[in-house]
This record gives sequence, C-alpha cells and structure tokens, in this order.
Amino acid sequence: MTALRINGARLLERHKLMAGFGETGNGGVIRPALSDEETSARLALLNLARERGFACSVDPIGNLFIRRKGADEGRAPLRMGSHLDSQIPGGNFDGVYGVIAGFEVLETLEDHKVASDAPIEVVVWNNEEGARFSPTTMGSAVHAGQLSLDKALGSFDQDGNRLGDELARSLTQLGPLKSIELGSESLAYVEAHIEQGPILEQNEIPIGVVTGIQGIVQFEVRITGEEAHAGTTPRSRRKDAFWAALDLTAQLRSVTADKDDAIRFTVGRLTVLPGSPNTVPAKVAFTIDLRHPDEALLASVHTQIYQAAETLQTPCEISVITTLNSPPVCFAAKVISSIERQAAEVGLDTARIASGATHDAKFMAPLCPTGMIFIPCRDGISHNENEWADPEHMIAGANTLLGVITELTRAKPT
Amino acid sequence: MTALRINGARLLERHKLMAGFGETGNGGVIRPALSDEETSARLALLNLARERGFACSVDPIGNLFIRRKGADEGRAPLRMGSHLDSQIPGGNFDGVYGVIAGFEVLETLEDHKVASDAPIEVVVWNNEEGARFSPTTMGSAVHAGQLSLDKALGSFDQDGNRLGDELARSLTQLGPLKSIELGSESLAYVEAHIEQGPILEQNEIPIGVVTGIQGIVQFEVRITGEEAHAGTTPRSRRKDAFWAALDLTAQLRSVTADKDDAIRFTVGRLTVLPGSPNTVPAKVAFTIDLRHPDEALLASVHTQIYQAAETLQTPCEISVITTLNSPPVCFAAKVISSIERQAAEVGLDTARIASGATHDAKFMAPLCPTGMIFIPCRDGISHNENEWADPEHMIAGANTLLGVITELTRAKPT
Repeated sequence: MTALRINGARLLERHKLMAGFGETGNGGVIRPALSDEETSARLALLNLARERGFACSVDPIGNLFIRRKGADEGRAPLRMGSHLDSQIPGGNFDGVYGVIAGFEVLETLEDHKVASDAPIEVVVWNNEEGARFSPTTMGSAVHAGQLSLDKALGSFDQDGNRLGDELARSLTQLGPLKSIELGSESLAYVEAHIEQGPILEQNEIPIGVVTGIQGIVQFEVRITGEEAHAGTTPRSRRKDAFWAALDLTAQLRSVTADKDDAIRFTVGRLTVLPGSPNTVPAKVAFTIDLRHPDEALLASVHTQIYQAAETLQTPCEISVITTLNSPPVCFAAKVISSIERQAAEVGLDTARIASGATHDAKFMAPLCPTGMIFIPCRDGISHNENEWADPEHMIAGANTLLGVITELTRAKPT
Repeated sequence: MTALRINGARLLERHKLMAGFGETGNGGVIRPALSDEETSARLALLNLARERGFACSVDPIGNLFIRRKGADEGRAPLRMGSHLDSQIPGGNFDGVYGVIAGFEVLETLEDHKVASDAPIEVVVWNNEEGARFSPTTMGSAVHAGQLSLDKALGSFDQDGNRLGDELARSLTQLGPLKSIELGSESLAYVEAHIEQGPILEQNEIPIGVVTGIQGIVQFEVRITGEEAHAGTTPRSRRKDAFWAALDLTAQLRSVTADKDDAIRFTVGRLTVLPGSPNTVPAKVAFTIDLRHPDEALLASVHTQIYQAAETLQTPCEISVITTLNSPPVCFAAKVISSIERQAAEVGLDTARIASGATHDAKFMAPLCPTGMIFIPCRDGISHNENEWADPEHMIAGANTLLGVITELTRAKPT
C-alpha cells in the first residue's frame, strides 16, 4: 500500500478560511473565546464536519467534539485538537493549527476510506487563551475535573459578560449538537501546535517531539520603603524601594543563570510608586515567572527566591508570595515514540523538546496517553500578529499527526 | 535699645488661620494654585494687610505684593516671601511659613514703629508647587523674565481650566489691588522656608543658612527590546528591556555614589511594557533626577550617564534625553553673612546648607542679592500631610528674618 498523506492544499485552504474570522488586517486575528468571531469560526468548522457526516457534540463547558466513527464504537475515542480562540490580538497559528491539522486527518482517513478501530475525535477546547475569561486552558481544565464547571461558567469578562451567558448565546448559533459529558474516557490525546519558541527553527528541525510541559511557578514580590524628596534626602537616609528591587532582581537573575539555558526566569510586570520623577519610590511590586521541566530544580530555585528576599541587605521590607505553582507534566512514552517513528516514516527530522508554554494537553496527560507535535514558527514569535509558520511545516506536522493517529488506532484501508 | 523680636503667639495664630484653608482633616491641606481654597487664604492675608494699612498689589501673573512704606519711597523695595499654594495634598509649612514669617516681620516693624529706609514687601508667589498648573515656580519665573507671561497664562489644569481664566476669577474675589509690573526692581530678596530634608534636625541646628540651590538635571531614558514568550524563549535569545534597565541603573547608581553623600540620584518613575507576567518586557522607560550644588560635577555626571547608556552591553536599544537642565544658583554673600550675624544675635546656632529643593528664590537670585533661611522639619518630611515644624523653630526663623530685614534696610525706631 502507498503511504497515506494528508491533502496539503486543503489544509492551507482551511487555514485561510479560519484566518478570516476576526481578521485584523495586520496579519493576525482578534477572536476571543465565545466572541461572535470565534463562534463564526466554530460554525464554519462544524459545517465542514456536517458535510462529511461527522457527528458533532458539545460538553457543558463548551468544548466541541467532531467524531469520525470507529470500527468498534464501544471503544473510547482517540482525540486530537487544540483551540480556535486567540489572544487580543493574536496570530493565525496558535491553536487553530492543531484544530485544522486534526480535522485534515479525519478528512484524509475519510477520503481514503481508512477504518480505525476506535472512533477519532477532533476537540475544539473552549477558552484556552484566557485572554477574555480567566483562567487559561479553561475548557480542558473543566473537562479533566481540575476546575469546577460552576466557577468556569461564572467567570466574567472585562465588560461584565458572564461566560455561562456568552456560551449559551454562542451555542444558539452553532446548529444542532449532541451533548457529551465532562471527563469522558479517551484512548489517547495528541495535539499539534506551533512551538511558540525559536528552538526548532534555529536547529532546522521540522518536527518537535514534545516530552512534556515544563513546570511553572509564579510569584508576586512587594517591596515597601519610604517616600522622600529626591532633592533633599541623602542616599544614606533613603529607603528606596526601587534600589531594593534592583538588588533583588539582579541577584535572582544571577541565581537562575544556568549553563544549558533551560531555566526561564522573567520579571514581566514591575510597578514603581508613587511614580514621580522627583520622589524617592516607596513601593515596588513585581512578578516573577519561573519555568523548568524538572520539578526538583524548580523547588530549589523556589526556595532560593524566598531566601534571597529574606537575606537581602536593604532598609526596605520585602514580601514574597507564590501565586501559581504548577508542576511539570511528562507525556507518554508510547505517544513520544509513535511521533518519532511516524515523522521518520514521512522522512522528517525530529528533536525532543519540552514545551515552554502551557497547553490543553497538560490536563489530558493525567487522563490518557498524551503527546504533542510541535512545528517551527518564525523567530519564535507568538501571541502576536506576526506569528508565522511555513506551509511546508504545517503539512509536515499534519502528516506526522496522521501517522500517529493511524498507528494508535490501527487504522487500515477498508 | 532692646533687641526687636517678633510676636510668636501671633505668628502661630496666623499659621493656624492659614491651615484652615483647604484643610483635609488629616493634618494637611489641599490648596492648589488659584483654587477657591488658595484664593480664600490670599484674601484672608490681604484683609489682615489692609487692616494694618499696607498697600496691596498684584502683577500680571498673579503674584501678590504687600507693602510697608519706607522712609524713602523712591528706593526699590526689599522683598520677602514664598507661596500659599500646596501640593495635592500638601503640608502646612511648605511655602506658607515664608509668607506668614514675612508678614510677621512687617507687623512687628509696624508695632514698634520702626522705620526702614527702603519699602519692605511680602510677596505671595503664584503657583510655586506646579501641582495644578505646570511648570513649578511659575510666578517667580515669569516675574524674572525666565518664562513668558502668555505661556504661563495659557497653562491648563487637568480639568481643562486655563490659568489665565482662573486667575481672573480669583482676582474678582480679592478686593481692590494696585497693579505692579513684572520684573520690578528689588533691593534684596530673603525667603524663609522649612528645610524639606533631614539635615538640620539631625544636627540639632535651628537655622540653616542657605548657600544656594543645587543644580538639577532630569533625564528620560527609553529602552527598546522585544516581546517574547516567558515560557519558551531562552535567555540567550531574549531582548529583555528590563534587564537592560537593571544593568544601566545599577551602573549609574554606582557612578553617583559619592563619599560625602551629596549627589542626589533618583529613579522615581519606571514603567515596564507590556507589563504581562508571562511576557518578556519589550519596553522600559524611566526618569533620572540628578542634583548637586556644583555645576562642574553635574556636567561630569551628565556626560557619564550618556556614556553608560552608549556603552552598555545589551541587545536592546537605549535612548537618553535631557528633559531639564537647571544650573546651581549661589546666594549673595551679603545676605548669607547677614543671616549668620542676625541668628547669632538672637542666640541661635546656624549651619550653611545647600537647598535640595527648588524655590522662588532661585529666580530672584540673578535680579538682586538673595538668600534663604531654613528651619528644621520633622524627619525631613515634606510634600506630605505629615509635614511638621516646631513652633520654637518657626519663631526662631522669623526672628532671624526680622534681624536680616532690619539690617538690610537700616531700619530704626522712629
């Protein structure tokens, strides 16, 4: 038998179709979760699914499931997917690529009349970005029982719209959908996604075999000094909160400088108060975002951050709180090796890579064998209208996904 | 003859009276320039002046002049004064002390029928604080021809009120006032003020003999890096604008650490954009406020700031602009020695001190022999409702002022 390949032209056509929903005119989209723009994108995909005779379902938090039947409908479905919502504004690849690649796999199997033993589903997770409603990866978290449905439905956007109401409004526009319960069993979960970092591109590797999602710890540091007149107060009499922040962040930057450049340490938000050019700052608050794939290393740096804050020589007071502590997730060896095998079968180089960003796959990992396929993106840029992935890599990733799905469901031509 | 002394009880009564205008209930006042509250304070002072038969005038920018006649009315007046407007909120001593101390000198001379050869005037400068209308020390700057009248009258507050309109509105409430031209000749100018710093209190010195006002140079630094995902972007690939700001400010802090702790170096405002905890900062902007009494030293540090920005090892771009460059002002030896002599006559210790803050005296210094008398304030606190000066020091300062004025005008009992 000739090796099965996806229809690249169709994949790119679907990609272009999706890019029209919420198009900004600057190369990106504004397509927040449950907005009219995202609802239109979801409806367009559902209509394509209905044309192919795929069953369409929705769960109570608004995750969509597009199902191609398996030879044995009693088996749990193998799932693929990602999300259609975007940052505000966002690019045309983050999320949407995993959805259309998954849908292309279903269509390819259909085109070639390939029967899988288990059913195969494309999932469109609700509100992955968290740009409109908090928190991020909401749909998969609720699906996996890691976030309460009521809490999620009760989330409000900045304009005071309740997610539950916006979901109901969106669903009325999507046509008939079956209901599916939360946390239904999956045979496996595979998500294709752009890397959102520079490593694959830099090393000219078309397929990243994702080993897991690195752990993330976030902190809020508050420093309290004393306001003073910038012209009259000698340095020796100042309690300058900014100087304390400077010393602390410099020390932490040094602590987190590792030889293999794997620790991600970011001070992304920092405010200085009162913020007057001629007043010595009395208050500084800043965030720390710390990530690494190794839980023990994270715990060690975690401790060092608290120690540095405690032992810093300063006349100011420093408080540190941990606002998020999400341990690393490891993907299934079975899926990892399948991705490597299938990429090789297509003739593609691979490299193992840890995901720096979080994804819906994180919540699927405890439920079933889970993995992710990364494709390179230009300059590592994401969450940005300039986000870009090569058509060649999009096709390569979808062919790899097709191979993995075929392998895991023992799909064969009928 | 018995040495002339001011009426301390009356001085404190006037101080209490003024503290009622714009009282916040927390120990301070909100009395912005030309507000109803400041207008009421001005009117109360003018009414006291009219009761004593002092002539009251106003110049085109709204500076008030309260005049006690001299034996020789053809001579230029000796002037004292400060301002009645406050920060928002401000304390009860900054500005108002110099006005009531000056007025107390006039009343004391009147009480004791002491004739001065030259006329003596108390000036209430308009808009010294710059808290409502920009720039600061506006009234004295316009008086001295250092700022155009039209530009000052055309200044708007945050609510869109034009200073010229607010001045006209205020003047209708002040009763009849003579007109006086801008830049009229002065015999000398002496301003009493709280130190607004901790030095006199720390050294238990009741009278600071101000040698001048230190120079001030202000800068705006802008650093441009690149936004990147905090989870996916290795340190080696980042253009982190905050790290560049950290390195530059640390270097400048080190450059400006002088042995005698006289350089004032402050980073009072710093913004980090986009300000998201999980995004590497692309833009940082910060201000530098640099002060020192020595012009050559200021110029040298000025150069070093530009050099540091140019030579910093960083993948980011740095731009520096000088937003203010106001050279140091030296006060007249004649006034300085008179203050020392007269304080000694009252039995008060003195210390020479450079003013860290700017004052209306800065614009008078090029026009006539000028000096300032500082009194201590608690903990160096100013521009704050907790601002506080001891009644004892207020009286000591006013007696010193009385002595200086008497000496400079050769005042004698009639």
